[in-house]
Amino acid sequence: MTSQNKLSVQALHWTGAALKVLDQRLLPDTIRYDIFTDAPGVAEAISTMRVRGAPAIGIAAAYGVVLSALLHFRPESKHWLAAVENDIQALAKSRPTAVNLFWALELMQKTLHENLANPAHALEILAKKIHEDDLADNVKMGELGAELLVGAKGVMTHCNAGALATGGYGTALGVIRSAYRRGLTTVYAGETRPWLQGARLTVWELAQDDIPATLIADSAAAWLMRSGAIDWIVVGADRIALNGDAANKIGTYSLAVLAKYHGVKVMVVAPTATIDWEMPDGRQIKIEQRPASELLPDCYQQSDCLVSAWNPVFDVTPVELISAIVTEKGVVVDPAGKGVGALR
Amino acid sequence: MTSQNKLSVQALHWTGAALKVLDQRLLPDTIRYDIFTDAPGVAEAISTMRVRGAPAIGIAAAYGVVLSALLHFRPESKHWLAAVENDIQALAKSRPTAVNLFWALELMQKTLHENLANPAHALEILAKKIHEDDLADNVKMGELGAELLVGAKGVMTHCNAGALATGGYGTALGVIRSAYRRGLTTVYAGETRPWLQGARLTVWELAQDDIPATLIADSAAAWLMRSGAIDWIVVGADRIALNGDAANKIGTYSLAVLAKYHGVKVMVVAPTATIDWEMPDGRQIKIEQRPASELLPDCYQQSDCLVSAWNPVFDVTPVELISAIVTEKGVVVDPAGKGVGALR
Repeated sequence: MTSQNKLSVQALHWTGAALKVLDQRLLPDTIRYDIFTDAPGVAEAISTMRVRGAPAIGIAAAYGVVLSALLHFRPESKHWLAAVENDIQALAKSRPTAVNLFWALELMQKTLHENLANPAHALEILAKKIHEDDLADNVKMGELGAELLVGAKGVMTHCNAGALATGGYGTALGVIRSAYRRGLTTVYAGETRPWLQGARLTVWELAQDDIPATLIADSAAAWLMRSGAIDWIVVGADRIALNGDAANKIGTYSLAVLAKYHGVKVMVVAPTATIDWEMPDGRQIKIEQRPASELLPDCYQQSDCLVSAWNPVFDVTPVELISAIVTEKGVVVDPAGKGVGALR
Repeated sequence: MTSQNKLSVQALHWTGAALKVLDQRLLPDTIRYDIFTDAPGVAEAISTMRVRGAPAIGIAAAYGVVLSALLHFRPESKHWLAAVENDIQALAKSRPTAVNLFWALELMQKTLHENLANPAHALEILAKKIHEDDLADNVKMGELGAELLVGAKGVMTHCNAGALATGGYGTALGVIRSAYRRGLTTVYAGETRPWLQGARLTVWELAQDDIPATLIADSAAAWLMRSGAIDWIVVGADRIALNGDAANKIGTYSLAVLAKYHGVKVMVVAPTATIDWEMPDGRQIKIEQRPASELLPDCYQQSDCLVSAWNPVFDVTPVELISAIVTEKGVVVDPAGKGVGALR
């Protein structure tokens, strides 16, 4: 790996016998890796959001299947396969929105059934390939996206679509990394309520790579756009429909509407593994609703309280509001009406 | 006072010799009143945001002038007037955006100079009148605004323009209180970063009055509007220019742009004391920038850190995005092109 692509930040580290997961809930104050040696542990790491971000979830789940095979496979027994299938089901249920999760598990399951006599080795090779390919794809997307940003005054990103959310380098933050090396100097990040991934992860990750970044409240983005400081919004995606509609962290749709009003462009950066080829448009995307407790102060959490919360943690940006979709297989500029089918 | 207008929530309580200020920074967990007996204390209560909200700031400052006169006036001395003037200057510097502050201090100063032989009594009468008039005006605005909401499916508010921000009843929340009594059942409140006044104050205040409310992340407002759940945004204002441009808590402009896109209407509710008759449009409104530390986690607060924050805490909504301005002197529907001059 060249110094240009050095991994100063790594969400996942595979040891050969365990998956080390950076507990992103503790960032930026504490850097701690938890060690998981079985699939239920990995599923829990995903559902509790120690690891998050659609590509990183897919990679973690793939390693979870390797751990399951290492633990359960017995050449003499007939029962191990059910245990591994059971683990795959548990991994599939760990988060609902990231299509990469299902994509990675499907690949792993296919390889499992092609190697029933000795699955662990083939599964490990595949999981490592999913991880390495994701990193290489991110670097490629970074360069493709940075070309679109030539001459940009400033950009804003939302949530964390960075090295922490992927196999490394990042999707949206990969583009920002590449653009920074080409001279882009002004990078804003939204706090991204309710989990503050922008405040806790994105600006931290950028600082680790010596890239200065300015944090803003999510609700200040419109005022920032009105000031003329930025000309692009650059975000990742958790799922992209065939027509180009893109699900991403709650607030992305808001930024896209505001961008349209202010003449700011919107770039969605995601590997083609994020595309759901079976889904014609974004209306079918299942939006994860998280507990009200993530928003409500403790004193409102009695059952008889008149205060409730509505906490969808993703939204869907219609393709009409997207200026470019950047993937490892190429860029679709002005995807409205065209969709992303040509990238298949 | 009728039960309809009972004060279940009170930000300020005048004892005759001291101003009791509800420390809003501790809500909703702790209800504590601090007692101030001099103007510098009141100025500090304003600058530290124990009390906030443009009308409440004006009322608190008025009582601060009474306290100053009570403390400094000596019929035999020539020096007391300078001490009171000094206090008025300090009060004027306690927050920069709320025009009500300067409006109230100007009234108090005029009365001071008309009653130099014995100022305290006249000043107390005026301060109490400012307080009582504000409450009465809120009730009037509540009824006027509620008439516009007849038939509305749901409304959303931002920040806290409630009893806590005023002499009682509230501006935006006064309208919501009145509309709730007429049958409106669906009320959403944005969290309102960075101080979370929506989460800490607005839903708490509504629950005190038995009005159910649903909290959302600020960045979920666009997705909420897209769902069709609301047809009005109802907000207060810290300053309104003659053409109708309105400064309010950061994020109000964002909501107004999003509302325009989704066919949702925007109501600004504020007493005419909030109108700056000398200011032709909103471009001259001074926007308070607060410290980056309000947004940044502790670990970024070293001077050599690459992470910074941009923290404007107000924005200006151009009149073109406002559907109605509701004041105690009447309503201006579609104020763009007309402005608010007719209310003078």
